[in-house]
Amino acid sequence: MKTHLAASAIALMGTQSFAQDLSNTLPDSVASVAPALQSYAAKDLFGTVWNAETLSVRDRALVTFAAMVTRHEADQLGRFTELALDAGVTAPELSETITHLAFYTGWGNATAAAEAMAPVYAERGITADDLPGADPELLPLDEEAEAQRQNMVQDNYGSTSQGVVDYTESYLFRDLWLRPDLAPRDRSLVTVAGLIAAGQPEQMTFHLNRAMDNGLTQEEAGGMLAHLAFYAGWPRVFSAMPVAKEVFANRAE
Amino acid sequence: MKTHLAASAIALMGTQSFAQDLSNTLPDSVASVAPALQSYAAKDLFGTVWNAETLSVRDRALVTFAAMVTRHEADQLGRFTELALDAGVTAPELSETITHLAFYTGWGNATAAAEAMAPVYAERGITADDLPGADPELLPLDEEAEAQRQNMVQDNYGSTSQGVVDYTESYLFRDLWLRPDLAPRDRSLVTVAGLIAAGQPEQMTFHLNRAMDNGLTQEEAGGMLAHLAFYAGWPRVFSAMPVAKEVFANRAE
Amino acid sequence: MKTHLAASAIALMGTQSFAQDLSNTLPDSVASVAPALQSYAAKDLFGTVWNAETLSVRDRALVTFAAMVTRHEADQLGRFTELALDAGVTAPELSETITHLAFYTGWGNATAAAEAMAPVYAERGITADDLPGADPELLPLDEEAEAQRQNMVQDNYGSTSQGVVDYTESYLFRDLWLRPDLAPRDRSLVTVAGLIAAGQPEQMTFHLNRAMDNGLTQEEAGGMLAHLAFYAGWPRVFSAMPVAKEVFANRAE
Repeated sequence: MKTHLAASAIALMGTQSFAQDLSNTLPDSVASVAPALQSYAAKDLFGTVWNAETLSVRDRALVTFAAMVTRHEADQLGRFTELALDAGVTAPELSETITHLAFYTGWGNATAAAEAMAPVYAERGITADDLPGADPELLPLDEEAEAQRQNMVQDNYGSTSQGVVDYTESYLFRDLWLRPDLAPRDRSLVTVAGLIAAGQPEQMTFHLNRAMDNGLTQEEAGGMLAHLAFYAGWPRVFSAMPVAKEVFANRAE
Repeated sequence: MKTHLAASAIALMGTQSFAQDLSNTLPDSVASVAPALQSYAAKDLFGTVWNAETLSVRDRALVTFAAMVTRHEADQLGRFTELALDAGVTAPELSETITHLAFYTGWGNATAAAEAMAPVYAERGITADDLPGADPELLPLDEEAEAQRQNMVQDNYGSTSQGVVDYTESYLFRDLWLRPDLAPRDRSLVTVAGLIAAGQPEQMTFHLNRAMDNGLTQEEAGGMLAHLAFYAGWPRVFSAMPVAKEVFANRAE
Repeated sequence: MKTHLAASAIALMGTQSFAQDLSNTLPDSVASVAPALQSYAAKDLFGTVWNAETLSVRDRALVTFAAMVTRHEADQLGRFTELALDAGVTAPELSETITHLAFYTGWGNATAAAEAMAPVYAERGITADDLPGADPELLPLDEEAEAQRQNMVQDNYGSTSQGVVDYTESYLFRDLWLRPDLAPRDRSLVTVAGLIAAGQPEQMTFHLNRAMDNGLTQEEAGGMLAHLAFYAGWPRVFSAMPVAKEVFANRAE
């Protein structure tokens, strides 16, 4: 079955290594304890969902990686690192993704991801010198929009936790989001994927709007929701659907 | 303490292997770093909760397994696989459970579960030939009810993500839910357990009603909530209680 | 970089072993696959956040440990156990913390924590004899307040799940919360940290009020929120902020 999958996936997705990677995300144990699950994976998830035109294969690999990091599925992250690299996500982009998700889904997730990624990077000869450093030249900041955001948060939460307000400004919006080695659109993509995977639709309105401001299309957002139904589970996506619907509606006005 | 537990559990639950399995879900490290926790487990959780008459031991084992899969507690799933098999959950039912939870709690959870289950199945001589295949004869579908559900979702979310709407119909309601090797009542049971364990009470109304339509009694549902307080944590259950209360009230009218 | 961190941390935090422990929570793989993340950790998280005066280093270590247990980050818990012990959390307190979190975040979390803690305890010569037993002399109970709580829950949920109501009274409020080896203020602290880390702001009002009744100051609560932004992720904290804000406002009236 895996050979068959590889063949069809090559035709649709272009590279043999990617097709093999996708197949590798399903360990042999699945076929031995749940043959039906193996079949759903090969035929429907790999054969149909990954090929749907709504979202590029590269974006699917990035979104899947972000969801797995968020869910702390460290045991499987090595295989999804291979997959992402072969799907066209660059090593610097993956590196920035876990740095970003450290802030957005918790430090321990990024640490576990680093442990899983290190052997893959080592095998491919990717070293720290190839990766973004601590102090790159930052992207330009829309000072006015940032001042507005900061004032709102300060007014709202300054007396609740000044630390949260201060760290949000200095570490996130005047630093992390301006790092150049992950495009703002991709930074938003992994943030929204993380929010869906973590079950936090209540935080999604701001970030889905930001994603679309940063270039994510509505079709891509819809494709991401369908893709994540598999990797984060149907209920996570159904809780995110009303938020997406409302964001789309408000932007169409 | 473990020997004592085994003795009392045998009297109440019938088989020595089950009592031993239950004891095995608590590794020796618990007694060495938290003796009080060991005592709570032996006396209260194993000795009292597992024996409460509200829910059968077989159902408790299935519900616990579903909660552990949902929470990605892969390190402990081998022991809970043994427990479920010895409590009367069949290997085909467990196989269907992880296939079902792949869709309802994320593919990576099912993959991790397969890895944990494979050694147990191998030791017991259970092979893929003993397990449900990809294309069984499906249970009959209530076409009218399904058309109604599908129309509602299409109207509501078709323009948000047609992919989600289409996959929900073709993979879930016209396929997965109709697979015969896990009874609809048990399929609902593991779905609701997964929703409680994942902290998604907002998705529970539909599935708890479906579970009760499929034969789950109110007493069993209440028993499941009390059981999951231990395995998913008290706050998850207290967030689910108002939903259960409302479902029970609406059905009583 | 680690050496530099150790030096500055020693100056601020007093002990070399603690500074080394903090540095150890970041495995070498982080520097090799995400140098920027290593820098954020050393400079901002360890160098600034851990030193902020809003919350003591001891409390930060306890809160971080509780968050990691709640998130089932078992792979990293050994290092955070070392950190907590060197920051002044006692072995009995850590033991009580996982017992408490078994009830508040799920049995499997505590089991995984025990597995991670056991080697650390063994190496330090901490045995079961040094730890709280199953039946200590309990702290006095405010019978009137407990009767009021119990009556409210009985009225509200007795017909939903009598098991939940009964277990809550007998195991939690007439037993667990009265165990003397973790101060009520600390028990509340780890409960609230667990709720934030698990993404359950809807259960936080009761427990944050209880924490403050038990002696947690508003400044400490705000400091915990800022600290957990890193360990549970920004969105978890932003979902908790409105609840904290409202609790603070209501108590100020």
